[in-house]
Amino acid sequence: MAMQNKNFIGIDLGGTNIKIGCLSANMKLLWKISIPTNAQMGPAIVIDRIVDAIKETANKKNIPLKTIKAIGIGTPGPAKYSQGIITRCSNLPKFTNVPISKILKKKLGRPVILENDANAACFGEFVVGVGRNIKNMVFFTLGTGIGAGIISDGKLLYGSGDNAAELGHTIVNINGRLCSCGQHGCAEAYASATNTAKRATEAIEAGAKSSLKKVLNKNGQITSKDVYEHLAKGDKLAKKITDETAEVLAVLCINSLHYVEPEKIVFAGGMIAAGKPLLDRIKYYFKQHIWKIKQENTVEICFATLGEDAGIIGAAALARET
Amino acid sequence: MAMQNKNFIGIDLGGTNIKIGCLSANMKLLWKISIPTNAQMGPAIVIDRIVDAIKETANKKNIPLKTIKAIGIGTPGPAKYSQGIITRCSNLPKFTNVPISKILKKKLGRPVILENDANAACFGEFVVGVGRNIKNMVFFTLGTGIGAGIISDGKLLYGSGDNAAELGHTIVNINGRLCSCGQHGCAEAYASATNTAKRATEAIEAGAKSSLKKVLNKNGQITSKDVYEHLAKGDKLAKKITDETAEVLAVLCINSLHYVEPEKIVFAGGMIAAGKPLLDRIKYYFKQHIWKIKQENTVEICFATLGEDAGIIGAAALARET
Repeated sequence: MAMQNKNFIGIDLGGTNIKIGCLSANMKLLWKISIPTNAQMGPAIVIDRIVDAIKETANKKNIPLKTIKAIGIGTPGPAKYSQGIITRCSNLPKFTNVPISKILKKKLGRPVILENDANAACFGEFVVGVGRNIKNMVFFTLGTGIGAGIISDGKLLYGSGDNAAELGHTIVNINGRLCSCGQHGCAEAYASATNTAKRATEAIEAGAKSSLKKVLNKNGQITSKDVYEHLAKGDKLAKKITDETAEVLAVLCINSLHYVEPEKIVFAGGMIAAGKPLLDRIKYYFKQHIWKIKQENTVEICFATLGEDAGIIGAAALARET
Repeated sequence: MAMQNKNFIGIDLGGTNIKIGCLSANMKLLWKISIPTNAQMGPAIVIDRIVDAIKETANKKNIPLKTIKAIGIGTPGPAKYSQGIITRCSNLPKFTNVPISKILKKKLGRPVILENDANAACFGEFVVGVGRNIKNMVFFTLGTGIGAGIISDGKLLYGSGDNAAELGHTIVNINGRLCSCGQHGCAEAYASATNTAKRATEAIEAGAKSSLKKVLNKNGQITSKDVYEHLAKGDKLAKKITDETAEVLAVLCINSLHYVEPEKIVFAGGMIAAGKPLLDRIKYYFKQHIWKIKQENTVEICFATLGEDAGIIGAAALARET
């Protein structure tokens, strides 16, 4: 009896992989697995595979299903999160108007909450990562795009229709670079991992000298990882591209400070593998651009600490809130 | 007995005038007065004049002081609002570390809350103005600067140190025009009333042709009111300046949508006297710039309706919350 209803499942449903974790009430990770999404199989099969994976792993780890109190699931937006419905999702092409919370609840007999994946990761960092002991936090994931989440007064900020904190699409350069969303001058159009690499490619194609040119010729493309590797080797173009990325991220930090005044601004996602050279540059440009009228710039800019577990931890922590 | 503790005082302490209003519990304005601030007399005398004005008017209007339950006061920032202390204020030069809430409470025997003036006006519009029946709202006052307030899930958003919603100083044009705060490319550097007029002056001084040149020569300066009057008469420079102001305000609206997803974005302050030509242009540029990936752009952009009473109403409404 003591084992009943004390654990939580967190699911991070991405376009490539589905990560699933089982966490205790104090958010200790009891087990985690990762399975390929195979989104092309369609939602019915994908959801069945999630259910089977949970049941099998619960059994194998000897932490029975009856100990699970609730389930949280994070997916890319846009979605009708509060209704538990994935409306459409570029990374999950066959998922159109899928009431995933309802289906999972029926199959597993537990309450299910659906959340934006960046919000879930943000909440994970807030509850057990770098956001412990603070009440206001802004969180960015730097990947293909720039995902974001806002914690205001201890809670995720949702807005009027569950789609607040689309901070990658805030405009930092009016009439600037075209973004995939159709706007001009979005932060994401410059500073996502994909657009960092893309700007390097464009510069080389326009004739800029760089050791990255060999990579482009060999692989047919440049990644943000390539940019940071060549930055470490002293390549001037890699430095210029990294500076531009950091400057845009610094302006995102300044605007976030002026909107919601967080104690911490946290960067996560693949691109933080660039490490200290990137973080130091963001802090440098933050100091260059921030207003001079206030001395008390107490916001801390830092990297996330939970890595790819943030999503499942956050989803489980949100399930615990219900 | 029935008359006791049912009314609220709202004070809008500005650099030029102090507006004071007495409101019933349902936020009906019972009386209001305006007295010159005379800030150079220093905080002790100014506060005594506020106390005297409240006592005299309460007496004259036959709504005795004993019917007052609490007092709210709005002042320009920055301040330690939650502690009730005006730390320093460019419009109230002698007010340095003044515990105004404590002093007023001692002299009037009622709880006093201190609030940012833009937040107070925002809350006023939220409670009895255009924000009735919504839960999320972003509010801008277009004056010397651009003040702002954010209502998130029915509450003012404060951030970690009472200074969130400094939206006039969010950057919309990285490396753009220098702002009085020391940053470059702030929305305020383009689109406040003062900077709208300043950009017109600069253009004329740089040789632009405009019917505003006569105004500049005659008065030694141009106001935003002049700009909108000459816009109405068909002046091309006035149109260009207004377009630039509206475009920056539209980007502020887009960024506000992506941060906190409000149902309404509300403009107030002296410059909304420009009326429909300004509002229509803001909406036009909003549609030009907003992302194309989502059809559901349900945010309403509108003007405030309470005029200069918003500040005292909001301060009284915040006093009612305590």
